[in-house]
Parts: sequence; C-alpha cells; structure tokens
Amino acid sequence: MKKIKIAVIGATGFTGEKLVELLLGHNSVELTYLSSRTPEPVKYCEMFPKFLNRTELLCEPTDMKKAAKSADIIFLSLPHTVSFGFVPYLISQGKKIIDLSADYRLKDTKIYKKYYKAEHTDKKNLNTAVYGMPELCGYEEKIAKADVIANPGCYPTAVTLGVYPMFKNKLIETDIIVDAKSSITGAGRKASLTNHYSNIANNIWAYKPFLHQHVPEMTAVLKETTGKDINLNFVPQVIGVDAGIYANIYVKFKNKTTALNIKNIYKKFYKNKPFVRILDGMPSLKNVVNTNFCDIGFAVSDDGKTGLVVSCIDNLIKGAAGTAVQNMNIMCGYSQTEGLL
Amino acid sequence: MKKIKIAVIGATGFTGEKLVELLLGHNSVELTYLSSRTPEPVKYCEMFPKFLNRTELLCEPTDMKKAAKSADIIFLSLPHTVSFGFVPYLISQGKKIIDLSADYRLKDTKIYKKYYKAEHTDKKNLNTAVYGMPELCGYEEKIAKADVIANPGCYPTAVTLGVYPMFKNKLIETDIIVDAKSSITGAGRKASLTNHYSNIANNIWAYKPFLHQHVPEMTAVLKETTGKDINLNFVPQVIGVDAGIYANIYVKFKNKTTALNIKNIYKKFYKNKPFVRILDGMPSLKNVVNTNFCDIGFAVSDDGKTGLVVSCIDNLIKGAAGTAVQNMNIMCGYSQTEGLL
Amino acid sequence: MKKIKIAVIGATGFTGEKLVELLLGHNSVELTYLSSRTPEPVKYCEMFPKFLNRTELLCEPTDMKKAAKSADIIFLSLPHTVSFGFVPYLISQGKKIIDLSADYRLKDTKIYKKYYKAEHTDKKNLNTAVYGMPELCGYEEKIAKADVIANPGCYPTAVTLGVYPMFKNKLIETDIIVDAKSSITGAGRKASLTNHYSNIANNIWAYKPFLHQHVPEMTAVLKETTGKDINLNFVPQVIGVDAGIYANIYVKFKNKTTALNIKNIYKKFYKNKPFVRILDGMPSLKNVVNTNFCDIGFAVSDDGKTGLVVSCIDNLIKGAAGTAVQNMNIMCGYSQTEGLL
Amino acid sequence: MKKIKIAVIGATGFTGEKLVELLLGHNSVELTYLSSRTPEPVKYCEMFPKFLNRTELLCEPTDMKKAAKSADIIFLSLPHTVSFGFVPYLISQGKKIIDLSADYRLKDTKIYKKYYKAEHTDKKNLNTAVYGMPELCGYEEKIAKADVIANPGCYPTAVTLGVYPMFKNKLIETDIIVDAKSSITGAGRKASLTNHYSNIANNIWAYKPFLHQHVPEMTAVLKETTGKDINLNFVPQVIGVDAGIYANIYVKFKNKTTALNIKNIYKKFYKNKPFVRILDGMPSLKNVVNTNFCDIGFAVSDDGKTGLVVSCIDNLIKGAAGTAVQNMNIMCGYSQTEGLL
Repeated sequence: MKKIKIAVIGATGFTGEKLVELLLGHNSVELTYLSSRTPEPVKYCEMFPKFLNRTELLCEPTDMKKAAKSADIIFLSLPHTVSFGFVPYLISQGKKIIDLSADYRLKDTKIYKKYYKAEHTDKKNLNTAVYGMPELCGYEEKIAKADVIANPGCYPTAVTLGVYPMFKNKLIETDIIVDAKSSITGAGRKASLTNHYSNIANNIWAYKPFLHQHVPEMTAVLKETTGKDINLNFVPQVIGVDAGIYANIYVKFKNKTTALNIKNIYKKFYKNKPFVRILDGMPSLKNVVNTNFCDIGFAVSDDGKTGLVVSCIDNLIKGAAGTAVQNMNIMCGYSQTEGLL
Repeated sequence: MKKIKIAVIGATGFTGEKLVELLLGHNSVELTYLSSRTPEPVKYCEMFPKFLNRTELLCEPTDMKKAAKSADIIFLSLPHTVSFGFVPYLISQGKKIIDLSADYRLKDTKIYKKYYKAEHTDKKNLNTAVYGMPELCGYEEKIAKADVIANPGCYPTAVTLGVYPMFKNKLIETDIIVDAKSSITGAGRKASLTNHYSNIANNIWAYKPFLHQHVPEMTAVLKETTGKDINLNFVPQVIGVDAGIYANIYVKFKNKTTALNIKNIYKKFYKNKPFVRILDGMPSLKNVVNTNFCDIGFAVSDDGKTGLVVSCIDNLIKGAAGTAVQNMNIMCGYSQTEGLL
Repeated sequence: MKKIKIAVIGATGFTGEKLVELLLGHNSVELTYLSSRTPEPVKYCEMFPKFLNRTELLCEPTDMKKAAKSADIIFLSLPHTVSFGFVPYLISQGKKIIDLSADYRLKDTKIYKKYYKAEHTDKKNLNTAVYGMPELCGYEEKIAKADVIANPGCYPTAVTLGVYPMFKNKLIETDIIVDAKSSITGAGRKASLTNHYSNIANNIWAYKPFLHQHVPEMTAVLKETTGKDINLNFVPQVIGVDAGIYANIYVKFKNKTTALNIKNIYKKFYKNKPFVRILDGMPSLKNVVNTNFCDIGFAVSDDGKTGLVVSCIDNLIKGAAGTAVQNMNIMCGYSQTEGLL
Repeated sequence: MKKIKIAVIGATGFTGEKLVELLLGHNSVELTYLSSRTPEPVKYCEMFPKFLNRTELLCEPTDMKKAAKSADIIFLSLPHTVSFGFVPYLISQGKKIIDLSADYRLKDTKIYKKYYKAEHTDKKNLNTAVYGMPELCGYEEKIAKADVIANPGCYPTAVTLGVYPMFKNKLIETDIIVDAKSSITGAGRKASLTNHYSNIANNIWAYKPFLHQHVPEMTAVLKETTGKDINLNFVPQVIGVDAGIYANIYVKFKNKTTALNIKNIYKKFYKNKPFVRILDGMPSLKNVVNTNFCDIGFAVSDDGKTGLVVSCIDNLIKGAAGTAVQNMNIMCGYSQTEGLL
C-alpha cells in the first residue's frame, strides 16, 4: 500500500519532536519533510541524537512550497500567529493541515486577539477549521472531512474530556473550579529562568490564576457542544514531572449523587473511545505518560453535593502530538489507534 | 544560663529526625535523651550519619522513667494511639509535653475513634491539652501555660493558616474546596510500595478524596475559633518533592472583592506573626522548604466571586517539628523565632 | 500468519511488566499466559491500570504445566535460584525459554554459588544455555538455535558492549575501572527503606564497591570471547532517574591513541548492529530511555594514554526485557528490531 | 560585641544567594551591602521572596566605593575576570577580600590564560592571595593573616580533600581517575537549554571529559602541598539533584593495603577538622546537602591494589559559600564552625 506522505513544519520544539517520534513509528505513513528555524539544513538525528539509527531526514529551513511538494498532510507545530502565514497557501495546493497552535481554535477573533495579542488574518480557513477532539460528540465525523484541523490545547483536552459528560447530562452547575498541574514542557523549549532545573525540581507554583489563555478555548468548546456558558475558574500549576497534566475538576451537582453513578455515565459515554479510560479509583499520572490515553476517576463528597473529576494525560501526546496523529488517522481512514497503541 | 533539657521519644521517624536537627541548632536547650523502638542503645549518628560530628547522643529503647529523669520538656513523635501510654506518667512527674501525634488534637473522642480506630484512654489530659498553633487568636497565651501541647497536623497547619482570616472576617461562604499537594514524607518512613521511588518520581496521585483523617482537625479548630461549621472538601495528593505542602483553597465570597483587599486583611491579621508571610503573587514551594515559614498568596476571579488562597509550608518543619520548637519557645519564654530563623 | 504464543512467568516485577508492555506492542506474537505469586487469578490490567484497554489477560498463580500448554516460548522473569524449578520441565515439553535471571549465565557453578549463595541444580541445561547478547561475536547464531537463553544482566550489557571491541582489538590493558550509575528499578520492586523516595531523590550513593554480583558475569563473557582475564574494578551507584544505566569505563591504552581512532574501530565493529549507536560526543542517558539502544561515546586524555568509554542503556529494556525480545526475534527468525523500533 | 560588617558583591547568583543566607544566620557579623548587575536598587527580598521577613536590605548596582565604606570584609561572587576590577581598589582601602571566582586561585598566569581566556591584570594581589582551603596543611594559619582569599572551586574542594592524605603519605601512584557528579547549580543561574529542567531531570551526561578548567587548580594545589605532579584524569557529569558533588577518586596503591588502613590514616589526618567526616561505609550525598561537611568513604579491591575514595560536598556550601564563611571566621578569629553548624 502506498504510504501517505507527511511534513512537519516546526519539528524542533517539544511537540514537533514528539510528532516525529510518533510518525516514525507509524506503519502507514512516511515522513518526507521536516523544517524549523534552522539557518541551514542539518540531519535531524544530529540535532536530536535520540533519533540516530531511526531517521536520516534533514531538518531544513522552512519552505512552504517544498513542504507542499513533499507531502500530502502537513503538521504545523509553530508558535501562535505563525500558522496564518502558511495555511492559505497550503490549502491552495490541496493539502490537508493539522495545526497544533491556537490559531484556528477560537472562532471568535475578538477573543483570539484579547488572549494572543494579534489580529487573526485568515478568517476564511478559521471558519471551516474543525476542532480536533475526536471523543466529543460530532467532531469525529467532521474531522474525517476537514481540510484544516485546529488541534486542541493540552489543558483543554484534559479538562473538556473530564467534564463534558456531566454538562451533557445536565448534572452540574455551570460554575466549576479546575486545579491543574502540568509538566513545564507545556511551556516550550525556550531557555528561561522559569524553566531552569532549580526552579522546577522540588517545587510547585501556580501561575496565571483565573487568567490562562486556554480558558476561552475550554469555555468555547463546552458552549458549542452543550449550549452552556461555563464559569471556569482555572488555576494551572507547574510540577516537576517529565511529562503530563493532572487536572482536578471540582463541580457542584444539581442533585445528590454518588461516584458510582457518575462513573457509569462516563463509561457509557466513552465506551467506544479507545483512548479514554474510566477508572475505579484515583488516576496516577504515570499510567498515561508516554501514551495517548486520558485517564479519568471520580469522587463525591459524603453529602453527595460536591464532585471531583480527576482527568490526566501526557501533555505532549494526548495533549498535542498524539491527538494530532489520531486526527490524521481519522482523516486518512485508518484505525484511530494506529501508531498510537 | 542553664539550658532547658529536652527529650525526644520517637527520634527516628522523619519528624523525630527533623526535631533532633532543629534542637541541636537551638542555643538555649540541651538534648539529653533520644529514644525509639531500637532493641539496643545505638549512637544516633550511627543510625543517621548526617549527624556525625554533631551529636554523640545514644538512641535508646524508650523508657519513660529515664526520659522523665533526663529532661524538662518531652517531645513525643509517635504513631497515633501510642502517646496515651506516656502522657499520664510524664505529667505526674511534672514534665511538659509536646505531642506531635493526633492523639490530643481532637476534643471529641467519638470523632477520634471514627478516624483513628481506637478508644481515647486519656480524657483527663485531652481536656487540658492546648492546640499548638500560635498564630491563631488566643492560642499563644494558652500555649505559654500549657502542660500538654497537641501539635497540629501538617495539612491543618497549611489550611487553617490559609483560610482562617477570611472566616474570622466573615468574608466567605462555609463551603470550601482544598486541593492540597504534599511530599510523601508526610506519610512516614515505613517502607511500602506506595513510597517506592518509582511510584513518586514523575508522578502525582490523589488519595482519600474527601475522606482524609485531618479534615475533622481542620473543621474543629475552625469551629472553635470562628463558631462556624465548615464544609471542607479536602483532596490531598502526593507529588515528587523532597518536602512541602502546597494547598490551594478555593472559596466563594459573600460579596465581590479583590485580591488586594484580601491581601490587606491578611497582612493586618498576621502582622506580628514572624512565620507567616503574605505575598504579592503566587507562592513557590521552594521558598518555604527548610524553613518554618508559611507563605500565603491570593487571586480573585474577574467577577470577584471566587477566591484562591495558596498556602504552603515545609510539612516536616512548619507542619510538625518547627511549630513544635516554636511552641517550646513560647512555653520557655524564649523568642518564638529562636533556633528557627 | 499464525502468531507465536508467549508466556511470561513472573509478570509483576519491573522487568516482567516491561516484557508485557513490549510484547503487547509486537505484531508477530501473542501473549497467552501471565503469572506471578498472586494467590488468585486477577486481571493484569487491574493490577497495573496502565494496561487498561490494552489487555484483558489474567495474571495467574504460576502453573508451569499451564504455561507449557499455553505458549511456545516462555519468558522467566524470576528471582535468582527460582528458574531451576521450571526449566527442566519446560524443556521436556519442547518449549523454548528466555530466562532473565542470573541462573543460566555463569557456566562455573562454584562462582554461581559464591555470588548467589545456592547450589546450581540444573547443570544439564546450564551447559547448553546460550548467553543472549546478540551483538557480541558468535552469539547471534547460537541464539537462533538455542533452547535456553541466559538473558544478560543490566550492568553486564552496558559494560561488555562498551568495552568489548577494545579488548578484541588488543588496544588496552586488562585492568579497567567501571564507574556505573543506575536507576533503583534495577533492584526490583520489593518495598524497603533503600528504595524509599526520600533515599533516592536528590541523592546518589555507591554500593557494593568492587563486590557486585554482576562482576563475574562480565569477566566470564569477556574471557569467553577474548581469552583474557580482565581485572574489572566495578563501582555501582544509585541515582534518581526513572530508568537507565550510565557506565563510565576507564581504560589504559597499550599505545597512545585518539578518540577518533577508537570511534572508528567501534563504528566498524558495530556497523550491522541496529541497537548500538556510536556517538561523536558524550551520551545523554535520556536518549536511550524507553528504547532498546545502547549509546556509546569516547574521550581520550591529552597524553593519549587514558581512555573513557561511556556506555548507556535503559536498564529494563536493553538491560533486560528489550534484549529478551530481541533474542526472541532471533529465535523466531524475525527481524531483530521487530517490536523494538 | 561590635559586629563585623560584611558586603557581598554579586549577591544574585546561586553562590551569592547562599552567602546571604549563611551570613544572615551568623550571629557575629552584620550584612550591610549587597550588589549585583541590577539597574536600580531593589529590595533583596523582592528579588528572592525566600528572604521575606529575614532582611530588608537593598540589592544595589555595584559601587565599589560604597561597598568599601559599608563593610570590613567583602565577598566577591562574580564571573571569572571581573574580580580584577575590584580587588586593587578594595585592598587600597584596607579591606579584606574573599573572592569566590577563579581569578586568584592559579599562581601561574599562563595557565589562567589558557583556561579562562583572559590576561591576569592583578599579579600583585595574585602573589599574596591565599588559597582558602583551611583543612590542608598550613593554609589555616595563612588564611588568618591574609588580605585576599582565593576561595576554592567546588570540584577542587571535593577532590583535594578526598585525595590529599594519600599523596601526603606517599601511598599512591600519581596517575588518578576522578569520576565526579554535580548538581547543575555549579554552572550558575544563566538561562540556557543546558539547564532546562527537561535536560537535567531523569538524565545524566558527562561534559568536558579530561578538559575541565578546574583540573589545573587541583593539580596546582596538590603540587604545592605535596611536591608531586599529579596526572589527574577528571570526568565531570551533571545529575539531577538540587545540590551536591559526589566525586569518586580511583587510585593505584604503591603497596597493597586495606580500606581500614586508609580510613585510619584519614581519621588521624582530619581529626581536628570539624567539617571533614571519615565514614565507615560509602557516603550518601544527602547527608552533606545543606551543610558545610565533606564526607569521605573508602573501598579497596580484593587484591589490595585499587582504591576508591568517595568524597562528597554541597557544591554551593562546602564547595563555595560555606568555605568562604569558614575562611571569614578564621580571618576574624571566630570559631571555624560559627554560623555553619
């Protein structure tokens, strides 16, 4: 069978590197083009010796024409506001695009501007872009036909998978609290005092409390799929782990309930979703690291009024590159799990 | 000046070891007796080579008569239900006791039995024991005169210091959520698969959600000092840090407010408390590790209704041995900060 | 194609768990039987929730007859001296065995007794067992035909791959120093104070200096393949990493040389070995973790007399389960890299 | 008693911060001046919130005249080649200086130039500067009278304390191997991809094998004190620990010996040195972290020919700021341990 050809633009960030790793292990696709801000072409395995004996591909200075000639599907793993410069041309060449930045996630360009401090310059493709979260109702079919996928953010993946079935089933009040902990890899590879080893190891700190730029993405997708305006009080924190997000979602039930009830609702909701696992107890982050799984567990207070949903993922896999490959699988008609399990 | 003599019963747990470390560095006291479940006397610095060149004391099989003869103040750093066997005798010998277990913290013996699965057999001293949290109104004076100090638990220290001023000032609803993260050292030194390196490093997991045995201690002290029944939804988690607790407390304000308002109230409330620091931003756990400080920071949501208080401590110091030494200082008439700053 | 059936006896240790993970991802084999010391059959994915949605297999109390009926190839991942009880029977049933313990590694039963404190009770199979290190001359062909594979130890894998080509080429004196650092996972899952998080994180300690039980395995294999008696001064240490061994091998050259010379000799020696990578600079442990690679780098002192070879592996993969699967591939006539790359 | 006044120039690096911490806890000195490259004066406790409630001092743009007016003893905690600009003036003002850079450590300015790529411009003070390692013969008396102390490097402290008594007693050959592991804090606070959390945690890597700039410092001090030219094969590595250096020194004995013999020689040699501890077994790094101790342990191979000395320290304390304070104590006539134990 002829393998579908793949390009990764932005192959040297944490997410780009993880994409390359997953795509090299995928039997039905062929990586043909890698690029970054490198001034000269360099062997990718010289930049990242972990890829020695695994690929001889060059990493080249980004050239979108060459990317378009080399590949059928193009992953964009770029800083925010950069994808605008590539998507219109690539679409004009008949390519399919999976964009891992935030640029095509928010349909409301005013909110985009507020959080990302830039005008959106590609409203045409923004309108048709599909939010790439295959587990939520309806998206999977749209993904299969889409030209541009807006791949979800890492926090939004953990939170919306964690909370959606309760909104869908009208079980909870719209005011929720999310206490989320993430690996520093979510902040990218750029050197700074913030990500110095000594600032992360044996430490934990909250940042941007109630103010994180992923909040409107979460409220938008929850509104789109449930019709509700959610008041999402979101507090992210950095912890010293290699990878992962562990999100504790606190909800108030409209009517008293039990953890068992909630679990059964989730089991039913996610029963055909291979990457969402509903647990009997509390999740351990380690069980999802290096996988595309999202593990979800529940507890309900004695009085039956307050609920905890713990939802955890590998932030670079299910929170970025893994879901991107899952979307690619759907677009290509492959099994969702190919190359991921 | 003659130094006050100190015994530590239970000197080989994490807390006992930290007590020894702090007391060896304290200029106004003299450690005279250390004991544990060791079958034979052994040099303490042979059991813990970090104490080489610092003390030649033996660690002996516990003998309460010898402890009473050796010391004026006796620290009990024992598993729950064990202190009952020592306190009555030691009191009869005119000694002062600082008990670091939970045994004298809960005045209601039914609640004690429910959470610790044992009858309380020393109600007499339970009645007169003083809860050793010097920063909360009124306790400091009582500590100065007490014979038995019930030294607070680690989570209760972080949470009650973090939330008390808001209850005192009637700013918040009584239903609160606490999302707390702790070093595994809080669970003691006993070997188990739970505290295996591979289960803690690069991991995080919630345990006993809404069910932790420290909840009644927190609600009892908040009730005693504010008159309110608090609905405390408490979710502890273990993170891979050497030491520390980082507690995120989520509250609902009765009236809209700002982080600045809250900060000013806390600054005023804690202005003469040398170990509570009110920050402008979010705390970093590392700043309190190896200290007796409790750092507290605030954020309020845009709509002014939801508040976050972050309160963090070193679980073995401000959460155990450090506060114990602070209580000793108050009992002896020393400066609260002696040996701790 | 009919898949070869595989059993894992001892499926709940760190190595057994890694074997299951690798075998579940291998397209040409089928896991049919898992066992451990569990008193009752339990779903393996209930014991290890990371395997939810990946296997529904039970983990059963070990029954060698059932294992023999269920599988063609049987992995034994057991404590030392336990394999003796299984191998003769399994061989009698025409099965092939890959034994991950030390029991079939040392041909000299006196040395075995000295280091493992037990008589060897299966000398017959010991004589025919093949040492499963496919990269060293001659072993690969023997592995293809073997009934019993003695899968190498983790330290011996890193050290012999690192040092062998220099002995083979008679470049160095026979007195060498190996300073090796390992993840605590090499010591197994059994709970103890030694592997408590607080004893490993932010720490490093040497143990059994010059005395480790893997030394005779290394000297035996080097003698067998080079004819030399090596004086191997081996000092292992534990460091706080999730996985991996980083072995620094210090050698004295017979004649002055350069790092480039050495590198070229190694590149030639390992040119058809897919899992050995010869680097230009110093290896980083992270590049081999979660892989079956062994990365090797070199430095030579200014005077050309002293050499450093750094050899690093994932201790549970290339140092145990990965090489075991590589051996299985060779025994089955598959590509060496199947399921491993 | 009037307290001696102290300035710290370069107070915001890891070493400067540790100096401030130690000096704030020292009862016989008063910190009066802190400076750094800050463009404006800022409260030091605002730059480092861990110092809240501990000091109200400003950190000012460096002004050596102001430093000279404010203090009796000045600590310079600066990058290499910067101290030259301060020392001559400060000496002219009658101040005493403890320089923590490499600038006054190497008497041979050609070697200085080779390793630090700069001309030495203050040979006058270089000639009189005293190497500040109080434990090695003779230095302590010289330190007491010195105007300029060249405070030792971190690796040289661990290595020379570890190996000196064997050279002094002519027990070993002059060719030694040192395999040293260090916290990344030894490389300073400057942001880079090298010290990104993801490059340090769960990793270990060797760097500058046989080439580190600390080698000539070690060979110079060993030559000065023993008359021998040492061939020191030094391989440093970075490990993921908060603090510390763990140096394994491999030596060849001239005559067969035992670990016990060696231990007794060291015990005698260091018997009046409060910060050097000779252990019975192998050291654990954790026992010296946050202390000014150097722990040393021994092993000798079965044939009595090869020796291992493990020497470990906290790289920022005994390897920098702690020894600097120890030197200050000696210069001021205080007990060596004041403020350090």
